[in-house]
Amino acid sequence: MARTNPHYDKLAAGYLFPEIARRAQAFAAENPGVRLHRLGIGDTTEPLVPAVIAGLHQGVERLATVATYTGYGDYEGDPPIREAIARLYRRRGVALGLDEIFVSDGAKPDSGNIQSVFAPDSVVAVQDPAYPVYVDTNVIAGRTGPFDAILQEYGGLVYMPCRAENRFFPELPTKAVDLIYICSPNNPTGAVATHADLARFVAFARQRRAVIVFDAAYSAFIKDPSLPRSIFEVEGARECALEIHSLSKTAGFTGVRLGWTIVPRDLVLEDGGPGKVNRLWRRRQSTFFNGPSNVVQAGGVAALSDAGLAECQIVIDYYLENARIIRSTLTSLGLTCYGGDNAPYVWLETPGRMNSWEFFDRLLREANVIVTPGSGFGPSGEGYVRLSSFGHREDVEAAAASIRDRLRP
Amino acid sequence: MARTNPHYDKLAAGYLFPEIARRAQAFAAENPGVRLHRLGIGDTTEPLVPAVIAGLHQGVERLATVATYTGYGDYEGDPPIREAIARLYRRRGVALGLDEIFVSDGAKPDSGNIQSVFAPDSVVAVQDPAYPVYVDTNVIAGRTGPFDAILQEYGGLVYMPCRAENRFFPELPTKAVDLIYICSPNNPTGAVATHADLARFVAFARQRRAVIVFDAAYSAFIKDPSLPRSIFEVEGARECALEIHSLSKTAGFTGVRLGWTIVPRDLVLEDGGPGKVNRLWRRRQSTFFNGPSNVVQAGGVAALSDAGLAECQIVIDYYLENARIIRSTLTSLGLTCYGGDNAPYVWLETPGRMNSWEFFDRLLREANVIVTPGSGFGPSGEGYVRLSSFGHREDVEAAAASIRDRLRP
Repeated sequence: MARTNPHYDKLAAGYLFPEIARRAQAFAAENPGVRLHRLGIGDTTEPLVPAVIAGLHQGVERLATVATYTGYGDYEGDPPIREAIARLYRRRGVALGLDEIFVSDGAKPDSGNIQSVFAPDSVVAVQDPAYPVYVDTNVIAGRTGPFDAILQEYGGLVYMPCRAENRFFPELPTKAVDLIYICSPNNPTGAVATHADLARFVAFARQRRAVIVFDAAYSAFIKDPSLPRSIFEVEGARECALEIHSLSKTAGFTGVRLGWTIVPRDLVLEDGGPGKVNRLWRRRQSTFFNGPSNVVQAGGVAALSDAGLAECQIVIDYYLENARIIRSTLTSLGLTCYGGDNAPYVWLETPGRMNSWEFFDRLLREANVIVTPGSGFGPSGEGYVRLSSFGHREDVEAAAASIRDRLRP
Repeated sequence: MARTNPHYDKLAAGYLFPEIARRAQAFAAENPGVRLHRLGIGDTTEPLVPAVIAGLHQGVERLATVATYTGYGDYEGDPPIREAIARLYRRRGVALGLDEIFVSDGAKPDSGNIQSVFAPDSVVAVQDPAYPVYVDTNVIAGRTGPFDAILQEYGGLVYMPCRAENRFFPELPTKAVDLIYICSPNNPTGAVATHADLARFVAFARQRRAVIVFDAAYSAFIKDPSLPRSIFEVEGARECALEIHSLSKTAGFTGVRLGWTIVPRDLVLEDGGPGKVNRLWRRRQSTFFNGPSNVVQAGGVAALSDAGLAECQIVIDYYLENARIIRSTLTSLGLTCYGGDNAPYVWLETPGRMNSWEFFDRLLREANVIVTPGSGFGPSGEGYVRLSSFGHREDVEAAAASIRDRLRP
């Protein structure tokens, strides 16, 4: 008599994007002919750069002949892509062994799967607001109690509030925690942790033998050279942190799919000396995964070449200019917003203390602009909405103009 | 104080392929200049067919222009690939809804991840021998006791022996079980379940509300039209089975990565009516996964087109001819072997009741041929070795000649 995993039933009602789509569709149905401006989902819109296109074609062509065809590769990605990733980190002064780099089909799978190697009763801390995958995957793994609809929190999960008062970077947890998820540049707030911010968490994690799961998926958007792009720029992080990264936003690979996780050999747990987490993640990946697509790896190597990185930087700067346009429009209206300078997301405080969904509806109704309600990312996201800079320039400009001209003061 | 998931420590020493590689390397080091013949790992060796190469190039090219670039697609794969899969099943008389098809990066991830939607205390039954992923992923999820080194079994796991006496298809479990993994054509035995074999398990599963996880990854090798290529050819299977499939062996996608799982809406569990497992798998995939690569999907659509299927069939027939060469060589030596007619694997009974590793060593030493010890797939694999037909014709012929000429009677 098979039964389902009961933890799935704890998940709070669906993902927020379906609800956004539902409201947008309902509005469009009632207002035919109205042009909707989408600043909601953080999905890349600009084509892959020439170097990447050439790399992908080469990857395909290699599979066309007996001499160059390859089947299964290394579970952790073949040497060329791992070497390219090691080079990327070396530019930032971070030395990695190739056996510390595990390439996958994206940061989302890695963010979700990494919890598998930790104890089922681990206490998990997340930034609040946070990327929902950190929370939902731990709910499914049984590390939380039920969802409290009043508090908008899962029992047993440690929420670390990120609000304007702390520059959207949390205070150290006051409870004992085992796993700490940190994302910088942050999704959804666009805040970027300073070296001192990360050093504080690294010291805490080393002292408590906690593990920091650091999500660096947006680090290519950091323009300020004083801000760390990797947690491994902080001394001691190799003993207490692992890092997840991706080409999704770095090189427009949201649909192509390539990411990676760095698991330092020096990472130490209560029950495992150096190397154990690295060995367990290797076992996890070799058991559940068969390596990233060889075609995609060829594109990834091209994206991380000097030419590829230079071309990708132009696209990133394009999105950052979109973010600047969004910010300056909002600021000119006297609204308060954050992020968007070293990150693709702008985090807008709702005016007049409206709640997130109320302001979502108002932006939709008055300016026909779709954003993402901050409350969808956790209780401390209430009172904010997220605006994404991923879009064609003309669409972003049209959205900004619509907000400027039509949002009522 | 973070700790590791203790279930990983239960896993019996590594995967068997590293041990095979170790012995092969040691032999090569002691016998420089000797040519080793590899009939071990089941990895495709022939190039992708022209239709697939063209499809992949088109998939890449679409990402090069603003008008055709796409980012995130559907978590379950975009409509064209799901429609192509639905067509494949329709040819076999199986009607599927597009919302019952979940496309992924391979049958291995799906085989490993599917257990996530079932209760943590589910009782799991596996064919013995079996593809190690079914076992190892349930060990990691905590559904077994420790490994018993004498019995070579995990506590709590129900082993269903597959030996010559039952044509390598198991009897019905005599214990209460919740999840039943069946692979046909089988890895490693090469045995193919008949319609009657599957009907017996379907009737059992429906009566007991158990779920059959059916792995059809090798079904393209079935030449005998009387043998079922999908469990959904059996009446009632939609209420008790899901099916995992892949282009790895069908179209040479071992490195390209594309697979899928069919979760019928009619599937019923003790605690969930029709649709619940489908909904939970959708939630699992949308939370942990971001859809298969869009480039790879384009190759998959091409592989499943009429032209692609016809071209792929030529490659499959090529491997099947390899299997015939291996079988006839072994048979001519008076050895007893199974499989290899509707499957890419030949399952060889060791002569003189040698154990699997002893005969592995003998084949390596005398004929310089590398095979896979059957005991690596479970206790009932003891006394057998698996020979893979994946290889270039000249290499398979050389291996066969070496066995014929040099294996001592």
